[in-house]
Amino acid sequence: MTTTSRSRTFDANASAAAFPLGGIGTGNVSLGARGELRDWELFNRPDKGRLMPNTFFALRVQPAGGAPITRVLEARRPAPHDLSHGYHPATGAGLPRLAGSRLRGEYPFATIEFDDPQLPVHAELEAFTPFIPLNPDDSGLPCAILTYTLTNTSSVPVDLTLAGSIINPVGGIGYDRYGNLEGGGVGQNVNEFRDEAGLRGLYLSSKRYPADDLNYGTLALATTHPNVTVKRAWVRGAWYDFLQDFWDDFSADGRLDDLGYETPSAEGRTDTGSLGLLDTLAPGERKAYRFLLTWHFPNRRASWSNRPEAPVVHNHYAGRFGDAWQVARYLTEHWPRLEGATRQFHQALFDGTLPAAVLDAVSANIVVLRSPTCFWLEDGRFFGYEGCFDEAGCCEGTCTHVWSYAQTLAYLFPRLEREMRRIEFVIETEDDGYMCFRACKTFGERYIWPWGDQKPDAASDGQMGSIIRVYREWLLSGDRAWLELVWPGVKRALDYARREWDPDDDGLTDGNQHNTYDISFFGNNPLSGVYFLAGLRAVEELAGIMGEPDLARRCRDNFTRGAQRLDERLWNGQYYVQRLEDVNAHKYQFGQGCLSDQLLGQLHARLLNMGDLLPADHVRAALKSIHDNNFKRDFSEHVNCQRTYVLNDEAGLVLCSWPQGGRPRYPFVYSDEVWTGIEYQVAAHLIYEGYAAEGLEIVQAVRDRHDGVRRSPWNEVECGHHYARSMASWAVLLALSGFHCDLGRGVISFAPPAAATADLSHFATFWSCGRGWGTYAQDRDEATGLWRPSVEVLGGDLSGIRVEACGQAWTL
Amino acid sequence: MTTTSRSRTFDANASAAAFPLGGIGTGNVSLGARGELRDWELFNRPDKGRLMPNTFFALRVQPAGGAPITRVLEARRPAPHDLSHGYHPATGAGLPRLAGSRLRGEYPFATIEFDDPQLPVHAELEAFTPFIPLNPDDSGLPCAILTYTLTNTSSVPVDLTLAGSIINPVGGIGYDRYGNLEGGGVGQNVNEFRDEAGLRGLYLSSKRYPADDLNYGTLALATTHPNVTVKRAWVRGAWYDFLQDFWDDFSADGRLDDLGYETPSAEGRTDTGSLGLLDTLAPGERKAYRFLLTWHFPNRRASWSNRPEAPVVHNHYAGRFGDAWQVARYLTEHWPRLEGATRQFHQALFDGTLPAAVLDAVSANIVVLRSPTCFWLEDGRFFGYEGCFDEAGCCEGTCTHVWSYAQTLAYLFPRLEREMRRIEFVIETEDDGYMCFRACKTFGERYIWPWGDQKPDAASDGQMGSIIRVYREWLLSGDRAWLELVWPGVKRALDYARREWDPDDDGLTDGNQHNTYDISFFGNNPLSGVYFLAGLRAVEELAGIMGEPDLARRCRDNFTRGAQRLDERLWNGQYYVQRLEDVNAHKYQFGQGCLSDQLLGQLHARLLNMGDLLPADHVRAALKSIHDNNFKRDFSEHVNCQRTYVLNDEAGLVLCSWPQGGRPRYPFVYSDEVWTGIEYQVAAHLIYEGYAAEGLEIVQAVRDRHDGVRRSPWNEVECGHHYARSMASWAVLLALSGFHCDLGRGVISFAPPAAATADLSHFATFWSCGRGWGTYAQDRDEATGLWRPSVEVLGGDLSGIRVEACGQAWTL
Repeated sequence: MTTTSRSRTFDANASAAAFPLGGIGTGNVSLGARGELRDWELFNRPDKGRLMPNTFFALRVQPAGGAPITRVLEARRPAPHDLSHGYHPATGAGLPRLAGSRLRGEYPFATIEFDDPQLPVHAELEAFTPFIPLNPDDSGLPCAILTYTLTNTSSVPVDLTLAGSIINPVGGIGYDRYGNLEGGGVGQNVNEFRDEAGLRGLYLSSKRYPADDLNYGTLALATTHPNVTVKRAWVRGAWYDFLQDFWDDFSADGRLDDLGYETPSAEGRTDTGSLGLLDTLAPGERKAYRFLLTWHFPNRRASWSNRPEAPVVHNHYAGRFGDAWQVARYLTEHWPRLEGATRQFHQALFDGTLPAAVLDAVSANIVVLRSPTCFWLEDGRFFGYEGCFDEAGCCEGTCTHVWSYAQTLAYLFPRLEREMRRIEFVIETEDDGYMCFRACKTFGERYIWPWGDQKPDAASDGQMGSIIRVYREWLLSGDRAWLELVWPGVKRALDYARREWDPDDDGLTDGNQHNTYDISFFGNNPLSGVYFLAGLRAVEELAGIMGEPDLARRCRDNFTRGAQRLDERLWNGQYYVQRLEDVNAHKYQFGQGCLSDQLLGQLHARLLNMGDLLPADHVRAALKSIHDNNFKRDFSEHVNCQRTYVLNDEAGLVLCSWPQGGRPRYPFVYSDEVWTGIEYQVAAHLIYEGYAAEGLEIVQAVRDRHDGVRRSPWNEVECGHHYARSMASWAVLLALSGFHCDLGRGVISFAPPAAATADLSHFATFWSCGRGWGTYAQDRDEATGLWRPSVEVLGGDLSGIRVEACGQAWTL
Repeated sequence: MTTTSRSRTFDANASAAAFPLGGIGTGNVSLGARGELRDWELFNRPDKGRLMPNTFFALRVQPAGGAPITRVLEARRPAPHDLSHGYHPATGAGLPRLAGSRLRGEYPFATIEFDDPQLPVHAELEAFTPFIPLNPDDSGLPCAILTYTLTNTSSVPVDLTLAGSIINPVGGIGYDRYGNLEGGGVGQNVNEFRDEAGLRGLYLSSKRYPADDLNYGTLALATTHPNVTVKRAWVRGAWYDFLQDFWDDFSADGRLDDLGYETPSAEGRTDTGSLGLLDTLAPGERKAYRFLLTWHFPNRRASWSNRPEAPVVHNHYAGRFGDAWQVARYLTEHWPRLEGATRQFHQALFDGTLPAAVLDAVSANIVVLRSPTCFWLEDGRFFGYEGCFDEAGCCEGTCTHVWSYAQTLAYLFPRLEREMRRIEFVIETEDDGYMCFRACKTFGERYIWPWGDQKPDAASDGQMGSIIRVYREWLLSGDRAWLELVWPGVKRALDYARREWDPDDDGLTDGNQHNTYDISFFGNNPLSGVYFLAGLRAVEELAGIMGEPDLARRCRDNFTRGAQRLDERLWNGQYYVQRLEDVNAHKYQFGQGCLSDQLLGQLHARLLNMGDLLPADHVRAALKSIHDNNFKRDFSEHVNCQRTYVLNDEAGLVLCSWPQGGRPRYPFVYSDEVWTGIEYQVAAHLIYEGYAAEGLEIVQAVRDRHDGVRRSPWNEVECGHHYARSMASWAVLLALSGFHCDLGRGVISFAPPAAATADLSHFATFWSCGRGWGTYAQDRDEATGLWRPSVEVLGGDLSGIRVEACGQAWTL
């Protein structure tokens, strides 16, 4: 394994690429590959494709003695150009743009290098939102930091104005059928210029909505640059006057004329404001110009489905900031720390030696937890949909079986992940241990199976996954108070599982086992079966910690019986199968199929250092079978009557295959599909089982499919955008670093597999746990051939923690 | 000028390419570059982007002794693949497709050549809808003829099944948020198999809607192929069973199992049916397999805006056919004539020697009159919107100023064009001669200016354009009864124009002159001024025909005065300008600008053989100025704060420029835009004035922009899809053939400009007029160097008509 170029670039044709900015629970605005801001999702709901009219950055440069050049700071639009009425002036599409651009994304940083042979300056853009592991508050700031760096490439001084324009969208932008701005919820909008305490810029608000209204909110576009020029509101004219006047004004001399409007906008109308940064660059001089885009839309419904009768609650950030200007001020006051820690995290991850595709997979899916898939309330409750429709969350309730694949949040922000377990086991788990696999009780809502009209079956994989993850959260935190809080629910949930799926107490699940494929498996099957074994092991460990040896022993006995029985019943010599007399007696089974998820429970055991659940050689062989049978290097001949996520010459791992025949007439409804979350969990598991090359081949395939032209590198979809399951990618980092953590015992350890370091004398990776984060490195001593391990703590406090690596141990 | 390859090909990446099938007033379904059917617009409204679930053609082939191969008969989908939930099974996206495709469109024929190295057959598709000049009825059949031709390229016999699947959409397909079929207006749908009189196939209807309901309708997918296999309805199952069962059934043996359902579909549900054609091809054998797709949705509202209270009326085709099966039977019974005449038209046009880009421009925009832009009622009334929103017409009323640019309908279906004039002058023109520029009175509706809340100003260009076109319709038809019908309205309309725009009777228009730019010009200007002169000349000619010499003399006097005054007042030495004391006193003027439309009135005079309206050298110089100033070979630096139709490295002709300065602060609202209709009118006029190379450069630029990747070659948009103004392209054919027609006098004539035939010994073109159509050719005698003209009449009866060409004359 060698480290290739550590990140990819995407040119202006990568129309699918959208790099989301924004914090945890704040919504997003994304940066496109042309340098354009797109997918404005600030308003407490997903909104893919949402454009913000009149909102763009533009540059006017004038070399001494030369003619001025004015450009929108975006690369030109690629085809298609086939809208029914052309591009509307509100898109500014008819203005001159730059010749080219190259986007590079190393989450949380995006950079764009612009090209334009006509310009006397070279332009770059860096965009990010502060991101600090273990610090969700400072990773949850409703802002995007946009820094343009300009270099004078000419031989004379260059005067420049760099202007950001932004419409005041408070209340909601409306359009008529021609694309003209009309109606919506705007009206009484106010654009102010503020200049105070070294911070200056536009502050956008509305007088129309009271503070508890869902439409209430503010934005700011600000800078600390000293010399600015401002037009608070573009001309309030007819037709396309708005853009004509702005562009003519800006182009003429690079100074913006404020038109002196002193009244709020009329009903159904709003204003666009522009903030220009003025400067002169000497030949060769390079300088950064920073814009702070902040927003504050505090209110949302306490509901998964935005039921109109649900009460209004506040976003978490609203508890810290009164408006968008306060956010901008906070950024300014804490800038060195916020920027510094974010860069430290980025370097810790990207300066590591993991393969480029792995760094990409691991970092890009962090996005999910800062996307509209997740939200965070003022009272601390943290939630996730599975993913998002273009304009709404989908599906609701921090779905236990989907989120069980995800590892990212647990390692980066373990406090938020513990909060999810608290909600599941303290609020959602019923007295008899039944867990709806969707957390709806917390909002006083009830989940009804949309195609069945009834209370859903408990999900065997989700219920066991939540139990297992309680053990993970314990290992990562050693938080005994939290464990005591959730422990009764965990025990009830396990009792329910044993009654429901193992009534004969043989340790092997049976009966109706609803699961993440939205159907139920019947009879003995490895998905539920191995998950159950892992759950028994996790509760055994937790019972030990909680001082309940009887329970621990009962779990161990049941586990031992079940593991043996499962291996006897389901091992077919190559992999684990489902045992059914008639595979077609129930629809949607898999029978003799080779299921990619068959050993997901064993992966959990690997991640949590719980050891082998099944014979190690069987596990290893089964993983290899999954790769050999289910990973396809070309989908041109693949037959899939289900949903299509991979096609043509792409590669991917299907959910199931039938190498030995026995495919049911109607196999389970997603069996021929490809889900990135499953690809990652299998990839991680392959690495754990010694098949690093096979695992990395899968990771590479996923990332190759997300090439900016086919799909966004920062949006892996399944049943929705920014799908939570994709956060299984973090497991690949864990597998390649062999990182384990037991803060209850006060130990962290590293054991990168041999394959991860084979030809290298240096290995380095990021790591994190509940009390700190940093880097781990091991270097081979050329003289002795021995590895020298080292740990650097970059955040948090791990003093007293014991580190184990390369056969050595020391205390931090 | 040389003839290059006569038509382009578009590969599977040309995602914007959509070739509309369907007749006049019938709606359309389009063929995409991958061979897929798209944009289903059968239901009496535009519907760009409308997919029809489960509807595709598929092929199963099995070489003797070999394994079967089953494919959807479409090329693979290009990127992007970034839907929030992947491709839904109802799209069949997960099924294997062909490696490649090449679409070629020579309207009305589209052909696709498919590539797939795995298949033992070579597959082609030809698609069209019968099209016969002067025969709107047989050009108005609600059908698409899809002929697949397969050639056995292997060395053994190949068994094949070619299956077309189609959902029964009667009532309207609905979807849930996941893309599952749910709700909509379907329910009680019935799929029958019919086999009668050599015609067999699926007949799709619904028991839910009475015959006068807007949702009422039928479809048929039929064939005359003798050996078929049928599945009337796909399995009525859960989840994605529908596709799994169909594909498994079809793949297994190429025979479709009918599932025996004998009840209509349940409420909110519908059925998909499949019709398979069975055959065996000997090695090397090539055979055609024809599907007739017909539809019949007879009812629409007698309203431009689908007002719910407007009465229901019938489409014209509903007066001829009772249902879709009758359409299929008519096709079968009249096939040799319908196919033969359509092929004759196609050959007459494409075997001509006009440059490829001109043939493309001329033919591709015929689509407009068979697109949802136009509709045709059972009582004979024929109407056009300007164009279409994705899902509705836009804007209403056979807009006089937009349609004045269009020539296609007048020459191909002059009866329908005369009907438009009848409506304008008999129904719409008010007692005082005021013409609303939108024909709304015919439906008892009233047009209100959407941004003004009041009765709109009369449009000076539209009103004169309609008057001029009455003369055109006369020349093309010699239909005296029709002329007598419209003549009083024409006179009133001219009187109104003189009172309104020339109150001082100097022949030069003045005052508030509303026009096609949706604003009013004030003061003397060439657009209104020259249009007015052309109108005076047209009425002079018509008055002569109608025996009103006083009126003719008055028009001539007024014309002579006006022409002299216009030239004196507006000629700036290079082109004609607008005279205003302060160009900013009114918004949206052009002043000293060089207007592309400045001599549109003169083009009308050229087309109608009315001679010079202004000094010939000035006209010629002005046209050259338009080309030199307004045609841009690259738009990267173009500044346009209005709507954007052309951008980046594309070329096009802007509506106006200010080469001598004097640009108003707010020039007219479309001045920096590019409209294909204006490009074509200027191109045609350049050719008339001796600048053929310049004219053809413009035509080439338009077509290059419509390259299937950026835009569809068969959809030129402006304020909507299939924009009527684009039918100005027919004028390029008229200019290059020098075709004139005066059926009142019984003469047609040809005079291709020297430049059109410079290096050729052969010139040939299509022509048409109110009584016939055919080809004109002239060949140079190598010995004498003289041209030998010849005319072939392919349709209609022109006996007794005198032909004039190459200095010769003869009678047909």
